[in-house]
Amino acid sequence: MKEDGSEQDRRTIELIESIASQVRGAIESGLLPAIRTPTRSLENVSYNKKAGYLELGKKEQVRALTVNTARAFAQTLRLMAASRAMVASNDFATKREAYYISKNWGDCRFDEQAESDAIMDDIEAIASLHGLSRENLRFYPESHGGSVAGRLVIVDKSAATGETIEIDCARLGVGAYSIPRSAEHLAFRTDARFILAIETGGMFQRLNNHRFWERAQCIIVEMGGVPTRATRRFIRLLSDRHDLPVYCFVDCDPYGFTNIYRTLKAGSGNAAHVNRFLCVPRAQFLGVTPQDIIDFGLEDATHPLTPVDIKRAKDALRNDPFIVAHPRWVAAIKQLLDMGVRAEQQALAKWGLNYVIDEYLPRKLSEVSGFLP
Amino acid sequence: MKEDGSEQDRRTIELIESIASQVRGAIESGLLPAIRTPTRSLENVSYNKKAGYLELGKKEQVRALTVNTARAFAQTLRLMAASRAMVASNDFATKREAYYISKNWGDCRFDEQAESDAIMDDIEAIASLHGLSRENLRFYPESHGGSVAGRLVIVDKSAATGETIEIDCARLGVGAYSIPRSAEHLAFRTDARFILAIETGGMFQRLNNHRFWERAQCIIVEMGGVPTRATRRFIRLLSDRHDLPVYCFVDCDPYGFTNIYRTLKAGSGNAAHVNRFLCVPRAQFLGVTPQDIIDFGLEDATHPLTPVDIKRAKDALRNDPFIVAHPRWVAAIKQLLDMGVRAEQQALAKWGLNYVIDEYLPRKLSEVSGFLP
Repeated sequence: MKEDGSEQDRRTIELIESIASQVRGAIESGLLPAIRTPTRSLENVSYNKKAGYLELGKKEQVRALTVNTARAFAQTLRLMAASRAMVASNDFATKREAYYISKNWGDCRFDEQAESDAIMDDIEAIASLHGLSRENLRFYPESHGGSVAGRLVIVDKSAATGETIEIDCARLGVGAYSIPRSAEHLAFRTDARFILAIETGGMFQRLNNHRFWERAQCIIVEMGGVPTRATRRFIRLLSDRHDLPVYCFVDCDPYGFTNIYRTLKAGSGNAAHVNRFLCVPRAQFLGVTPQDIIDFGLEDATHPLTPVDIKRAKDALRNDPFIVAHPRWVAAIKQLLDMGVRAEQQALAKWGLNYVIDEYLPRKLSEVSGFLP
Repeated sequence: MKEDGSEQDRRTIELIESIASQVRGAIESGLLPAIRTPTRSLENVSYNKKAGYLELGKKEQVRALTVNTARAFAQTLRLMAASRAMVASNDFATKREAYYISKNWGDCRFDEQAESDAIMDDIEAIASLHGLSRENLRFYPESHGGSVAGRLVIVDKSAATGETIEIDCARLGVGAYSIPRSAEHLAFRTDARFILAIETGGMFQRLNNHRFWERAQCIIVEMGGVPTRATRRFIRLLSDRHDLPVYCFVDCDPYGFTNIYRTLKAGSGNAAHVNRFLCVPRAQFLGVTPQDIIDFGLEDATHPLTPVDIKRAKDALRNDPFIVAHPRWVAAIKQLLDMGVRAEQQALAKWGLNYVIDEYLPRKLSEVSGFLP
């Protein structure tokens, strides 16, 4: 991923043209054309402990042209053609827009977005085997990324003039930089020591207003719950290119552990073909941990685990390949189940609004080796 | 609202101290103290057509100190004390944090956030009668605002040094300025002709990537569905201070009309005490209108109205005081019901991804007088 945007664009067009050539070649030879796509179902997904994420296996399916598949086959080719055109014109389409542009495709128009999404996933899975992401194909997610502030200069380029634009994330006041839907073309300058990925917007605003990133020499990112695709890709690129550890600061509950943190770090099973681009294997769990509830005296600012919490925790202990592979996570989740309570990151406000800045984060950051994996 | 932040801070502290003095005075005179708050229920809410928003009437309730109200009475005073301390230290608390700081209040701690929220609403209602918002009281919403780009320079101040910070929203590349939880202290410089408030993130990204704001000489704001409190306040302040019209570009469906647009323009009935700060009476509805579906040939890119759509539309015609007060809205909603379909703003992509930029928006903006009120 160190290559620049134009090199990725060249490879994207090359890939699309090579598939199109194969199809055309088959037709011209009087053969029925076929397109091979990686199988995306869970049976073809496993946790690669070394790489640190859930990944696709080698199983493939072949979409051959038949009477039954003619429509989907044509739709696949048209979506690839749309992708090629967008790369050439430096444009993009959201998944929803991609669905609508088909309305002019006559008989092969999509009737529902579920159809175009499924075909887009197939194309994305093919591209992923060539190191190209859906953003390279110019299909962008609808949701923007979270907010960013701190010791980071983002280097972008004016679409109109080609002029370099630098955004200093230490000079945005109490506002922040809103991560765009594709970060592929961005470059970064930073002297930060780490990235702090924060679950809630309120906590992000607190750390930003008090310029926590200045004294801790870091970059803060608001995830706003489960991080969107754009947020994950942004953190991944920044962490990779500048060799920055990523510390996660989320609620102490099964949702925080297995949905927010695990998604950021290891990806999710039903989108295994994209994890190699999106997940952040270097992420570590700063807190709030079950042990923190004891160490920081938060017992009376907790809430009982709900039945959903308990089910989610037990499911993770049984079935989550990431959790199962990490004995310290298994122990932490068992400890939480024994304690029977959950704690939000805001619970630290019990000791004063800025206890989190003055006490909690400095103490935790002084012992990074204690972070959960 | 032209006064600066420090003047508002002074008035906020003055208000809190005057209520506290009254309570103390009553106690010292051997009387049971009482706090008067505006009644917030719907019976005390009406649509002020001249002001352009749903507003509270004159009904009040009196919270007198009795055995039954002692706890809530004490909680009200403690929350006001917390507010005073935050104004003095230039800090803030989210609603969730405000709930947690009570955990150290002994017997008058809040058991659930619903309790602290209700009391905060009462305090906010009192403050609103004095022209002060919840943000002035330093209770911030959890959700940040949407994203902003275009011909706007935001003037903020470094909390650390007091130094002025200027953020040029025309120099953020494909990123954007993320609106903070409180915009009260911000100042603006702009040569924009209008503010374009956009429902979906994908459309915002399209207009930003293509620098639509440059050629249209405007500021674009991403609402991301129903605009959050922070987004509404930001648009309101910007529109008021620079006399800018606000054009809304949302989906053509009852949710877009009565939830997104109406909330931005006229506020909502169950938060009538805050509408005077948040709603944007100058907002106008650019589209997508039911007539646009015909005028721009979108018929085959529509979807049938769902039963929920139909119910929402009929409810609006019967009960929504804003809709009922505007015959053109009544006609538009009846037209939509007759047509039986809905259209998203992305449906314009049927004519090409950038049809919205090259055709739709220029045609609409050439006839602003045709916008729905």
